[in-house]
Parts: sequence; structure tokens; C-alpha cells
Amino acid sequence: MSQQTIGTALTRGPVLIIGTGLLGTSLGLALRRLGVNVYLQDTSPSAQALARDMGAGEEVQNGEIDPEIVLVCAPPDVTADCVNAALRQYPQAWVSDVASVKNTILQELKTQNADLSRYVGSHPMAGRERSGATAADADLFAGRPWAIVPNPQTQSKAITTLRALATDVGAIPVEFEPAEHDLAVALVSHVPQLISSLLAAQLKDADASALALAGQGLRDVTRIAASDPSLWTAIIAGNRASVSHILRNFAKDLSKLTDALGGADEAPLAPGVVGAVNQVMVAGNQGQSNIPGKHGGAARRYKIVSVLVPDRPGELARLFNEVGQAGINIEDLDLEHSAGQPVGQARLSVIPASAEKLEQALSALGWRVVLD
Amino acid sequence: MSQQTIGTALTRGPVLIIGTGLLGTSLGLALRRLGVNVYLQDTSPSAQALARDMGAGEEVQNGEIDPEIVLVCAPPDVTADCVNAALRQYPQAWVSDVASVKNTILQELKTQNADLSRYVGSHPMAGRERSGATAADADLFAGRPWAIVPNPQTQSKAITTLRALATDVGAIPVEFEPAEHDLAVALVSHVPQLISSLLAAQLKDADASALALAGQGLRDVTRIAASDPSLWTAIIAGNRASVSHILRNFAKDLSKLTDALGGADEAPLAPGVVGAVNQVMVAGNQGQSNIPGKHGGAARRYKIVSVLVPDRPGELARLFNEVGQAGINIEDLDLEHSAGQPVGQARLSVIPASAEKLEQALSALGWRVVLD
Repeated sequence: MSQQTIGTALTRGPVLIIGTGLLGTSLGLALRRLGVNVYLQDTSPSAQALARDMGAGEEVQNGEIDPEIVLVCAPPDVTADCVNAALRQYPQAWVSDVASVKNTILQELKTQNADLSRYVGSHPMAGRERSGATAADADLFAGRPWAIVPNPQTQSKAITTLRALATDVGAIPVEFEPAEHDLAVALVSHVPQLISSLLAAQLKDADASALALAGQGLRDVTRIAASDPSLWTAIIAGNRASVSHILRNFAKDLSKLTDALGGADEAPLAPGVVGAVNQVMVAGNQGQSNIPGKHGGAARRYKIVSVLVPDRPGELARLFNEVGQAGINIEDLDLEHSAGQPVGQARLSVIPASAEKLEQALSALGWRVVLD
Repeated sequence: MSQQTIGTALTRGPVLIIGTGLLGTSLGLALRRLGVNVYLQDTSPSAQALARDMGAGEEVQNGEIDPEIVLVCAPPDVTADCVNAALRQYPQAWVSDVASVKNTILQELKTQNADLSRYVGSHPMAGRERSGATAADADLFAGRPWAIVPNPQTQSKAITTLRALATDVGAIPVEFEPAEHDLAVALVSHVPQLISSLLAAQLKDADASALALAGQGLRDVTRIAASDPSLWTAIIAGNRASVSHILRNFAKDLSKLTDALGGADEAPLAPGVVGAVNQVMVAGNQGQSNIPGKHGGAARRYKIVSVLVPDRPGELARLFNEVGQAGINIEDLDLEHSAGQPVGQARLSVIPASAEKLEQALSALGWRVVLD
């Protein structure tokens, strides 16, 4: 949790936040909590007043202030214009933005002959299902990566100032070049979103009986297919070059696989089928193991202790209470359910050294426990 | 939890289990717990003895018994031969198997002129990361769907007998025709596995800095890419016709999308890009909402209450203890982590009527709570 209190901020301020939606208001709340002076500005007077009433900062009349940093938290399609206007209006300020695609904004700013030496792009990897100031949260950035994206002309002081702000609100700054950033988010976010949606789309006309066989695997792979279409359409359209590049690589691999599998007839097992499927599975293992685990370390191997939990109020509470009494920290957990049965399986990830102790403690208390 | 005790089984028995791996031994344990007479047989004498020592049943000398049901729990590539041998050796018995692909086995049995009237295929949707008798668990089938797959010649008594056995061990029987079953598991299991692996494979050579931006979405979509290649290669090769059919539909949709996105250059936004991306997102929403929710009902909408949890022993325990004291049942939950920060977000799904009560109760106790 971001435990900083007033007076410990690295950011001097004042900070001007332009755009008081979810991100802008959350930033204001986080900075105000540290005692940083925050000004708010939005094209919608009511949105601006709402953010102020929530405690995210003071309203501003244009031109009356001298901000250290201007953070543009506007929609992506107006971000470049807002950044350039801020660079002109506040010639002493560092200016940044939070849009999720960076290269197109930089190109627009170049076209506009903006003062790029005081601009550093950024992209906090934080968001929520809900949008707007009412969903704002001072802890929105806690523990999240925050991409810092300078251009070749950016002054180093701009970079350190923005890194400090990200650190202040509990985020972890990671530096990228613009094109490199856009390719990275295409890879870890935009393409996974599209692939999940394309897969879920195959279920659109599926029989209910087929879907009754669905397990946790399908639920996991398609969870983000429930995401907001209008938000994601804008993000992906803005990063279409990087997204398209990775999707084409995916399509090539897929086409190799379907070629090997052959047509949809019941022909005998052709040579190459087993090898092609195995190659996909092994490559998937390798790629998956590259994803960093909890706390940004290399992927760690936890032991999983599975516990059957009756679906009644208080049972999960009892379970976690008894885990806590055993003095064991749970590193990760998920609940697994199946159709038609009032029982779930809680899968508790613990460090290997704790697994047996946990299993014994819970078994002794009457839980049905399985050590994977 | 499967609360049945001795004497309440619908299955008369004895049940002969051929193949004492994970599924066979787990079935034996579950049936023995109900007092059903179980015989065990395996080509490996030591595997057979291990299952017996675990309490899964008695060992059998061929020909000495008169089973009501023979369940072949052997590897898929020898299943048809084992089923046919059992049909010949036990002319009074119903014979079934648990292989994950059904049509190829039926075709093999036809070629062998097997007595199909006493054969009914089946496929319990249960498994674990580990295999073998040592991983066996009497609760493995609790709450899981169990596909019952008769052929046109199957006697109805064979179907009801197998349904009863599935119910006895806590599973939920669902009936399918063979081709229909294979298409269903391709759709909800085999294709999602391959797509997850193909996506994870794109991360194989990714920069660590790009992967540092990974969030929960990527982790979810690629979780099953960590699955065992040899096991899945055999399953998918055995169901290649159905898998290929669905993968080709997926590839068609993907190709429509990449065509609309255009090449990997920085060209201006072409007409059709936004529409094509939006169409994928909306279709994904529709497909995802078709997946049945917990307890097999139609997908239910829960409210999610997010709580920030410091990463210290006992904190999750305290949280769930306090949720339990508030008298609220958690329908689902997941923990979300980010790189480099010792804090997690627990997302608790509750019925909408409980959400506000939970938020207030936890806030009053000092938790940082956010209602989505």
C-alpha cells in the first residue's frame, strides 16, 4: 500500500492536471494525500467541480498559475493538442500525458513544432472497469508499472521529475522509447485483448450443452473478452501498426499449425501433426515462463495447496482464518468452480517450504486438502 | 463437497477399473468411500499395487470376477483395444472408458466388431497438473461435468448405470453424441489451449522491459500455456478434425481483422479499421457472456469489491475473517499483483445486494476498499 504521508513527496508542485476523469482525479487524490499542491482543469465544468469536491485539488482559471508539471489526462485523440497548448501556455513547466499509445502523439507534436525538450510522454499501467471521477482512487497506481517515454529532445530533468511523481503515487517507473513502448503494450496488452476476444467470439453460437463442459481454463483465457469495446477499439486503432505486426506473426504460427493438422476430415494421423502441435505447446511453455511473477521478480515456483470449500457464508473466512493462525503467507490464490455443484476448490499458492506445513495444519482441522 | 457416505451409492458394483493412473485410482477411492466393491487392474503390477495400498480397491486375477461395470482408464491410444477385450471377457458387464476424445475410439471399436450395445463412452472433465496414482483424490470429480457418450446401439440400461456412477462420485452427467462431444471439447478446451499457447509463444523472445508491463489480463490469457506438452499433444492429435475446424474459423476472423488493420506502417487511419476492431470486441463480449457462471446457472452478474491487501502473513486471513463476520458469502475472488510492490488487490465477487454492506463493513475496519 502506498504508505507515504504528507511531507514525504519528491514532487515539489504545483501539478496541473488537465482532464479530470478516472486517471486525472486519481492522480490528484494521490498527490493531495502527500500534500502536493494540485490544480484541476477540465473542458466540462461539472466534471472539474466533481473532482474538486472529491478532494483531488483546486480549480484553476487559465493563466493564473505557474505549475512545475502539467499532466494531460485527456482522451487520446485530443492529447497532442492539449500537450502542445500546455507547453505554450506554461513555458517553465514540464509537460506529460498518460495516453496508452505514445508514438502517434509524438509525431503529432512534431508536426505542430511543439517544444519537445520539456515534454516527456508517460503511461501508467492502471485502470478500472469503471471510468470517470467517481471511480477515482488514490491507490489506483499503487504497485503498477508506469512507463516513462522520453523523446530524443527531452531534457533529463523532465525525466527525473516525472519518475519522482510516479514513485510518489506508488507506481514503478520503467523507461521506454516511444516505438518500443507501443510495441511492448501491443505485445502484453492489446494483442492479448484481441486474441481473447477472437476466441470468445467462437462461442457466440455454441450449444449450451457444449458450454456446460467449460472449465477454469476457458474462463481464464476469455475473462478480458468482457472488456469495454469502445474504449479498446480506440486504444487498438491508435496502436494499429504494432498490433498488426504481432497479429501477423501470430497468424503465421497459427497457419503453420492448421496446415499440419490438415482438413476437418477423419483422415488417419498424417506425419507432422504430432510434431507441429508439440512445437506450439513447448513454445507456449517457454513464452509463459518469461512473464515475471509477483513483485516483479523472475517467475517463482510456488507450491499449490488445493482445499475443497463448501459454498456457505463464512467457510472461506474460516479457511483463511485458519491459514493465518498457521502463520503462513498466501502468495496467490484462485477459486475454481464447476457447473451445478455447491462446492469450490481454493488453490492457495505458498512458498515450497510452507506447503507441507499448511497441508498438515488444514488436514488436522478437517479440511479436504490436496497438495499438487 | 460430496457428502455421501457408505450405503448411499446408486452403483451396485462390483466395478472393475482397468488402468490405475490418476483417474482410475481417484474413481476407486471415490467408489470405495461409498462402500462400492472395486477391483483394480493395471499392466504395471507396481502401479496396481500402489492403487490398492492407497485404498482404491482390491487387485484382481483375470477372469475371477463378475463386474457390473468395467471402466477403462487407460491411455487414449490403447483404450479401444482395452474396451473390446473387456466386452469379450465380461459378457454381462457394461463397459465404459474415460478418454477425452470419443469418436475415434468408437470408430476403432466398430472396426473390431465390438459389442457396442454394452459400451457407452464417457469423459469426466476432471484432471490435475500431476498424474499417477499418488496424485489421486476421491474428490477429483466433485462438481465437475461428466460427459456420457452413448452410440446408437448402446442399451439404455448402460446409460443409466453410468449416469448413476458419475452422480455417485459427485460429478454432473451431461449426455452427448460422439462427434458432438469431440466438437464441444475442441471448442471449450482444446482450441483455447492452443490459442493460449500460440499467444504465449509470441513472448518467447520478448524484452524483459516489455514483459515488466504485463498485467493480470496477460497472466490470465496465458495461464494454461504452462500445461504439459506431451499430454496435450496426444489429446489434440486425437481430436484434430474438430480442432482444425474451429481453428480455421478463428483464423478466418483473425485474417479479416489483420486485413482491416493494414500493414505494419504508420499510415493514416484507414476506413474500416475502427469498425473491424469494434466488431471483434463486441463478438467477444457476446461469446464470453455465453459461458455459464458458477453452479451451472446462466452467467450471473456479481458486484466486485476490491480491497488492497498488504503482503504480510495473516492479512488475507484477517480480511476473510472480517468478511465472514459481516455474514457475507464470497461468490468468487481473485488476487491481483503487480511488479515490484508488496501489495495485492483482492477482488471479491458478491451478489449485488451484499456489495454495499461489504464495502461499508470493511471500510469501517480500516481496509482500503473500492466498489467497481
